[in-house]
Amino acid sequence: MATLNSNYLKLKAGYLFPEIARRVKAFAEANPEVAPRLIRCGIGDVTEPLPSAVREAMHKAVDEMGTRDGFHGYGPEQGYEFLRTAIADHDYRDRGLDVADDEIFVSDGSKCDGGNILDILGPDNRIAVMDPVYPVYVDTNVMAGHTGEAIEDGSFLGITYLECNAQNGFVPAIPTEKADIIYLCFPNNPTGAVATRPQLESWVDYARSHGSILLYDAAYEAYISDPLVPRSIYEIPGARDCAIEFRSFSKNGGFTGTRCAFTVVPKGVNALTPKGESRPLHPLWHRRFTTKFNGVSYVTQRGAAALYSDLGRAEVGALVAHYMGNAAILREAVASTGLNVFGGVNAPYIWVKGPSSRENGSGAMTSWQIFDRMLSEANIVVTPGSGFGSAGEGYFRISAFNSRVKALEAAARLKAMVW
Amino acid sequence: MATLNSNYLKLKAGYLFPEIARRVKAFAEANPEVAPRLIRCGIGDVTEPLPSAVREAMHKAVDEMGTRDGFHGYGPEQGYEFLRTAIADHDYRDRGLDVADDEIFVSDGSKCDGGNILDILGPDNRIAVMDPVYPVYVDTNVMAGHTGEAIEDGSFLGITYLECNAQNGFVPAIPTEKADIIYLCFPNNPTGAVATRPQLESWVDYARSHGSILLYDAAYEAYISDPLVPRSIYEIPGARDCAIEFRSFSKNGGFTGTRCAFTVVPKGVNALTPKGESRPLHPLWHRRFTTKFNGVSYVTQRGAAALYSDLGRAEVGALVAHYMGNAAILREAVASTGLNVFGGVNAPYIWVKGPSSRENGSGAMTSWQIFDRMLSEANIVVTPGSGFGSAGEGYFRISAFNSRVKALEAAARLKAMVW
Repeated sequence: MATLNSNYLKLKAGYLFPEIARRVKAFAEANPEVAPRLIRCGIGDVTEPLPSAVREAMHKAVDEMGTRDGFHGYGPEQGYEFLRTAIADHDYRDRGLDVADDEIFVSDGSKCDGGNILDILGPDNRIAVMDPVYPVYVDTNVMAGHTGEAIEDGSFLGITYLECNAQNGFVPAIPTEKADIIYLCFPNNPTGAVATRPQLESWVDYARSHGSILLYDAAYEAYISDPLVPRSIYEIPGARDCAIEFRSFSKNGGFTGTRCAFTVVPKGVNALTPKGESRPLHPLWHRRFTTKFNGVSYVTQRGAAALYSDLGRAEVGALVAHYMGNAAILREAVASTGLNVFGGVNAPYIWVKGPSSRENGSGAMTSWQIFDRMLSEANIVVTPGSGFGSAGEGYFRISAFNSRVKALEAAARLKAMVW
Repeated sequence: MATLNSNYLKLKAGYLFPEIARRVKAFAEANPEVAPRLIRCGIGDVTEPLPSAVREAMHKAVDEMGTRDGFHGYGPEQGYEFLRTAIADHDYRDRGLDVADDEIFVSDGSKCDGGNILDILGPDNRIAVMDPVYPVYVDTNVMAGHTGEAIEDGSFLGITYLECNAQNGFVPAIPTEKADIIYLCFPNNPTGAVATRPQLESWVDYARSHGSILLYDAAYEAYISDPLVPRSIYEIPGARDCAIEFRSFSKNGGFTGTRCAFTVVPKGVNALTPKGESRPLHPLWHRRFTTKFNGVSYVTQRGAAALYSDLGRAEVGALVAHYMGNAAILREAVASTGLNVFGGVNAPYIWVKGPSSRENGSGAMTSWQIFDRMLSEANIVVTPGSGFGSAGEGYFRISAFNSRVKALEAAARLKAMVW
């Protein structure tokens, strides 16, 4: 008889965002008169129109598809050269970073890539994640059988959680124990923290001396405003030997619903065979890509390439400025109530330490208590920090992805809250 | 130190189509004067323009994305309701088949789905495939560690190969040994064979009595011309308890470069936990989809939905008629040379038994010998049958995906060949 992958049974019922959606829906149904007032600062989804440069390129590509000569069937699974070259040029080589066109793999999303990369890695790697953490890193490792069972606080046995807190600026300390695969995300989701160059140098040193691999999620790179903060892990010498970088057009070009991203797999990143031989991962990822994927829509790739045109870059700049304007407004509003506020300067996320509980006069409110209070009192949907891991307990995340009108309204309501 | 997935090292260097591309490139570079004459009847890629109904819907969706109100960010990972409902209505319920909207999972390709489905299945299943077989079924199982090593004829230990040959009409006999996961593809790639209702009933009976799961690839369903041939496995009573069906818009709507497909996972399909409990696979696939995928582009989904409009259906009908017209022309041309020809009636593939070897006066030519001769003498690219498995040795596949002009020219050259 056929068997199922029992690792899935270790997963808890709710992936964070479906659980938020469930609570919001229940609240809106119970309070229909309030429902229109709801402001969603929860999920990190962009809200502003797709740039005109992208739309123009997509229209043109759709028209091409209507002609025999311009029709595009199967493309290269790894992405068209026009896009791989544009990415490698603008995001890397123009900044003095050594990345070849064929080290770029164009995909339909960083979430997909972050899960799929596990396909080419061995089952015996020790996985380390930041805590709080984007839940997908953990869940995909659970699915792949790289963990033990879930324990009470929601964490999984067999994973190393690298605690991020106000004391370490939400950048974890180098672990003392072995870690083979280490997920780093900067600018960070959910905390909005960035890592300095010396901090990233420490991680690259650790990885190179231990033969570890860094899975570096830079999906929010466009939001870095501080010129001293590295935008790519490849700004760190030696990273080409140990780091895979994930990037996306979701948050810079507004592509969350259009779907295009890319992964950089340098040819110098190696891992061990069971016999202890060191082999490059690039051919394995290439093989996975060509066998289990058929490339991103031609029309979408043309749209993504347009983000690198002069107009496209100006429009990306305007989008980022818009969302970061929201971030400044929201950040100031929350800070004015006396809460401790982090992030929101080099990232579109504001990470807030919740207050002590009014109910029992002592102890901190839990993240879900804060969530429920924000929902019922301010009619604002935030993301409970504990949904990102036990180190996020007591925190909540506010997303700056919104219209200015709604960000201003949310700021006014946040300011009015008495904690 | 980090380790890699050593199952990848079992794979042979060339996935079939890259190897074909390599040989064609080498030939064209060595014979530049002949290169413009090349006609590609190899890879099964569509050639005709994207239907106007699709383009119109995509243009409209791109324009929507340029407005705040019409902008679409993250959509439901499983696909928008407008598309899931259109699929379930037109492809199933209108034909009297019981499939719910939420049993449809919209994806970016059947190749992806066919590989990804293994994520939710256990590592100990015995896998059975038809031979010849679409290589991706085998390669993804190798990657997932469900096989042993490759042996000399290119097959893998630990997989059950179900031989398809002229004697059994390229529809395999029910196995006598245990098979937990069985890949069936009808209309078949590469042989163009279809299974009759009684043959599919036997497979469903086998699966239900053994607790096996049928992975039913119906990507070429639109090409069935015989009204007695089932278009969906769900036309067979009991299939909702044992079959997962893969469908695609690639070959009916010309979406190979636009990327949209879907998988049907009925809620009645169960598999065993390690403790021997029977559990439905639907929640696992749902969990995989929401965790490791972010949905298909909104613009693309609007384009796919337009295939179900009156205009879209008429255009799909015209596309299928065009390619099947090619198939008839090519089929007749090859048959006129005395070779044994299969397929090409309910499928866009013609499967040809090659001749005996001229060189040694006895024995059949190998598929690659035929490939090379077709390339050098007729300047036609076919697909060597042995690339699909050892039972394909001595055969070759001709794809009917081409313009009429090229199909006619290819037919003339094929007719002129003396075997």
